[in-house]
Parts: sequence; structure tokens; C-alpha cells
Amino acid sequence: MKTILIYSGGLDSTVLLYKLLGEGQDVTALHFNYGQLHGQAEEACAVWHTAMREVELKYIRLPFIETDFRSALLEGKEDIPDGHYADESMKATVVPFRNGVMLSIAAGYAESVKAQTIAIANHAGDHPIYPDCRTKFIKDMNEAIMEGTDGLVGIASPFCNMNKADIVRLGHELKVPFENTWSCYKGGDLHCGKCGTCVERIEAFKLTGITDDTRYMEN
Amino acid sequence: MKTILIYSGGLDSTVLLYKLLGEGQDVTALHFNYGQLHGQAEEACAVWHTAMREVELKYIRLPFIETDFRSALLEGKEDIPDGHYADESMKATVVPFRNGVMLSIAAGYAESVKAQTIAIANHAGDHPIYPDCRTKFIKDMNEAIMEGTDGLVGIASPFCNMNKADIVRLGHELKVPFENTWSCYKGGDLHCGKCGTCVERIEAFKLTGITDDTRYMEN
Repeated sequence: MKTILIYSGGLDSTVLLYKLLGEGQDVTALHFNYGQLHGQAEEACAVWHTAMREVELKYIRLPFIETDFRSALLEGKEDIPDGHYADESMKATVVPFRNGVMLSIAAGYAESVKAQTIAIANHAGDHPIYPDCRTKFIKDMNEAIMEGTDGLVGIASPFCNMNKADIVRLGHELKVPFENTWSCYKGGDLHCGKCGTCVERIEAFKLTGITDDTRYMEN
Repeated sequence: MKTILIYSGGLDSTVLLYKLLGEGQDVTALHFNYGQLHGQAEEACAVWHTAMREVELKYIRLPFIETDFRSALLEGKEDIPDGHYADESMKATVVPFRNGVMLSIAAGYAESVKAQTIAIANHAGDHPIYPDCRTKFIKDMNEAIMEGTDGLVGIASPFCNMNKADIVRLGHELKVPFENTWSCYKGGDLHCGKCGTCVERIEAFKLTGITDDTRYMEN
């Protein structure tokens, strides 16, 4: 089956990439750059994994998000809040309707290249803060995409009810080289270890007992 | 009320622009260029009307649609079929999930600038050929957008059950200068008078008895 994967180069979508390849699917990875602070670090990881696994990588640049949308993720490092990923303060990192935009573009591309499925690695840990990661959103969006492509394209969201620890466990089974995946919202050379997504990453490895080879900044 | 209008510069969205302004709404127009053959002609009309009515016009460029999506609308003039707009052959002019992509981007932008509504001028004449213009698609997409923006943004699609003749009648009441709106899929200096959207335009004026000042090519 031909699948279009929304692929950032982060831990979740990299585990999904390995899962889909393990199932023998014909994957094309779509990497979106929308001016996110950690875009360069994400992109380097996306390039590395797709090269290693011989997967086609397509870049989609959305410069209008950087110029016209509002989110701390599009501002300076100092705007990224430290703290737990489910804290109310993390709402500053929402990029409005980002998953809706990425899924819609992936749907049009999938129909164009005759792929039946778009895969996205949203998970239960995203639900408190990010409305466009929740189960109902994915269900509604799937309805809209099925209708708007005359039934040709649908969404697969296999991690929707898993948490990040479950994903780390699965990635470990699939031998994903986690150290070449990027999470930190602040970008840079090393993970900061303090922002919401770093905290979630550290917690997930701790919960599973799997060794975390990520290099975090020492503060 | 603050409204983001998906605005091509075509007849339908121009009538919707005048309707929203007549209702006293605070409108920002989003004009999408995705490499459509008639992009330049559309854009000229979009610029003209927004300048005349002192409406903010924002451009969104989607070059990846031109390079990676498949549609006759993105190829050469010779690929645009002549004939009735409801003919099966007109399916070649579908740009996969185009309205889904535009609505999603408009939703993220609307949330960013605290607009509650996105307006789109899809109508009943579009339904046979374009799945992402149909009532059920708009309803599904509205659900997804409401969910994915935490209830902050919804879709208005007031022409969804009107045909093009109804829109011409409304535009006539609203004194829309129709001659400065663009329909023809082939682009160029004059409307071809033969492609699906020209045929629909000509038919709509005939049905209403309203004078059609559009200049069509003589063949």
C-alpha cells in the first residue's frame, strides 16, 4: 500500500516511519517547514532517516505560517515556556490548525500520486494542549478528506491512543536509532531538557526503563 | 464580525465579498496562487476589487501544488476541456483537495488574527464535478475546523445551495461590476467562452436576463 507520511524527523513520526516500513508499505515522507524554531534540527533528522531507509523525502515550505500565523514556536527561544508538557502555559506553542493544514496538503498530494493513506503520528500525550491532535479532530478530518477526495484517501493515526512511553517501547522493538530524532522546541545543537517536549521525552524513556541516548544541555 | 474570505477574484467570491461588506463585516481577503493557468487574470481582479472596496488582501503562494499535484488546471491551455461544466470530462480540472487546503490555511490564519469565520463561495453548480465543494464536505470540514481550533473558528458557505444564476442575481442587486471578475480556466486576456466555467458564466447571465458585459474571444 502507498502511504504518505507526515514526517518531522521527531521521535514519534520516526517510530511511525519504521513501523510502516516494517509492514512493507511504500512510504513517501512529507516534511513541512513553516518557520518553526527547531526546523533545522528536525530537517537534519528527517534527511538522515529517509536516506538510511531509502525513503523518498519531499519538502513542503509554508512561509506564510511564519509571517502570518501566531505561535511561540515561530518566535524567539525565550518565548518557549519551560515546564511539563501538559501545563496550561504550553498552549503558547500551539501553531493554529497546523495538523489541519498538513493533513489537507498531504491529502491533495496523496490523491495526485494515487496513495490511499496519509499517516500521522499524533498521540495521546498531545491531547491536553493541542486540539488538532485529538481523536475527534482526526475522525472529523478523516471524514472531510474521504468526502473531499471522493473516497480515495483516508487518514491512519495508529498512535492516537498511545502515550509517548508506548511509542518509545515500540521504537525500541523496531530498533529505531532514537539519538537521531529531534524533539526540543528551542532548536539549537542539543536538546534543552526543560521545554515541554523535552520533559515529555525524558519522562517517556524513564517510564520504559529504556536507555535515553539523547544529549541534553547541562544547565 | 471579523471574517476571512477565500477570494479568487472570480464572479462567485466577488459577489460574496460585496455581500459580506454590505452586512458590515470586517473582511480580510486571502488570495491563493497555486500555479493555476488563470492565476494572473484572477489576481488582477482580486487586486482591483479589494482596492476599490478598501479591503485587506493577503497573498498565499502554494508552489508545491504546481510542482507536485496533478490537474489540467496546472498544465497547458490545451489540457483544459471545452464543454458543459457538469460534463464528466471536466473532472480533469479538479485540483485535488484544493478547497480543503485553502480552508485549512484560512482556519489557522483566522485563529491567529482572532477572526471567527472563514467564508467560501462554493455553490451548487460545483457539486457534480468537485467533491470538495459539496454540502457534506463543507459540513465535515466545519466540524474538523471547529474541533481543531477549540471552537474558535467556523465556516460560512452561504452560496452552497444556490446556483450561479442565483449568484448573478444577488451580485446584480449588490451592484457588483461583473466585468472585472474572472472565470475562464484558460487565463489570457479574454474569456475563451468555451471551457466549462465560461459556459457556466454565459448560461447564468442568460438565465437571469441580466446583461453580460464580459468580453469573450470570437472564434
